Amino acid sequence: MAYKLYYYDIRGGAEPIRMILSYGGVQFEDIRAPMFPLPPKLPTEIKERATWGTIPLMEFEGKKLNQSLAITRYFAKKFDLVGSNDFEAAQCDEYVDTVVDYVKPWVPILMEQDDVKRKGLEQEQKVKSKEQYMDKFEQIVKDNGGRFLVGNTLSWADIYLAHVLNSGELNHGIRFIDEYPALKSMFENVMNTPGIKEWMEKRPDTKY
Amino acid sequence: MAYKLYYYDIRGGAEPIRMILSYGGVQFEDIRAPMFPLPPKLPTEIKERATWGTIPLMEFEGKKLNQSLAITRYFAKKFDLVGSNDFEAAQCDEYVDTVVDYVKPWVPILMEQDDVKRKGLEQEQKVKSKEQYMDKFEQIVKDNGGRFLVGNTLSWADIYLAHVLNSGELNHGIRFIDEYPALKSMFENVMNTPGIKEWMEKRPDTKY
Ligand SMILES: N[C@@H](CCC(=O)N[C@@H](CS)C(=O)NCC(=O)O)C(=O)O
Ligand SMILES: N[C@@H](CCC(=O)N[C@@H](CS)C(=O)NCC(=O)O)C(=O)O
Repeated sequence: MAYKLYYYDIRGGAEPIRMILSYGGVQFEDIRAPMFPLPPKLPTEIKERATWGTIPLMEFEGKKLNQSLAITRYFAKKFDLVGSNDFEAAQCDEYVDTVVDYVKPWVPILMEQDDVKRKGLEQEQKVKSKEQYMDKFEQIVKDNGGRFLVGNTLSWADIYLAHVLNSGELNHGIRFIDEYPALKSMFENVMNTPGIKEWMEKRPDTKY
Repeated sequence: MAYKLYYYDIRGGAEPIRMILSYGGVQFEDIRAPMFPLPPKLPTEIKERATWGTIPLMEFEGKKLNQSLAITRYFAKKFDLVGSNDFEAAQCDEYVDTVVDYVKPWVPILMEQDDVKRKGLEQEQKVKSKEQYMDKFEQIVKDNGGRFLVGNTLSWADIYLAHVLNSGELNHGIRFIDEYPALKSMFENVMNTPGIKEWMEKRPDTKY
């Protein structure tokens, strides 16, 4: 098969790539290194293929691309998911990088092994996340007509945010979409998109 | 003035934007909030203008862009600094994101107040950085003809890496270019580029 995506057996930084390849109708080999036991150890064979020793790594048509966002943006562009002009492309970039900032403080919380402590941290982080990010994303989608973050069409910013909202439920049991109607409609819109819908139904069950 | 860039009074995440605006011949208002005393406090007036409460923030032509890399990429594209096809644009993205990964562990080292401890951490991090990043960037530039990271022309990946090599000297007294001839030629190439050269000469002296 011509397209090979290497990552751990989780959603994480590779899931938006999987969603976008599926949206574009690309058949890809979804190569997954075991995540457990923690901390995960990247198999030497993969570590050496990756230019910087990190995954995700994408190999296709004799080419190699590393870095999750570089790979995601490349395929987003290929399938017209980057807005309809350079400024909209930049807005997609802004929103994706902001979603990445939003995710950052959740990572150590996910790794907290004490259940009571983790629940406390989750509630605290939820309040901060709403104020700094979700209130604003809601307003952006609302001001923009209620379905998309950027312009009048689906973009990789929608896909990226929808993925992260989805993982928030899997990882922390938090469903922001129940509190934000515009984000809910954006989310459902993404998840019902042909290609993405089928991917959601067939993707492997993973812990993260 | 139509272009306003808001950041702290340091190079940091705004410097590649300043370099690229200067390269493109754009006059911009370089608005700098005080960095000291540490930790810096973003003035309320700026915090409220920024969509996510963070800088850099760019205002221009009635538009607003946040997120350092989104802003940098937008102007890089405007001035033809994103390679000559979509794959080269993705390689620029990959290299820039990798430079960002490279910088991350240096930030807490810079904040270490004990000089002896900091020097020790710097030497340790230098060894790691060479192995994971600089050896590979050197090879990439070399394989590519010895002057550029991507294709046959200057790109924002060159500018971004050159800026970070430059800051490595300012912040830690480390000059990787003395050990890597291809990176040295790439670096000098960037720093002698019209627009960038003039910016380097006139930019404010700052601690970081
Ligand atoms: N900025 C990189 C970060 C990649 C990264 O650090 N990936 C982790 C796994 S999520 C990794 O490969 N770590 C090295 C290892 O596990 O040995 C990206 O977005 O692709
Ligand atoms: N991912 C963002 C990060 C921006 C960021 O966190 N900037 C810092 C300053 S370097 C900030 O504004 N912090 C908030 C504050 O200082 O109040 C970007 O690249 O623009």
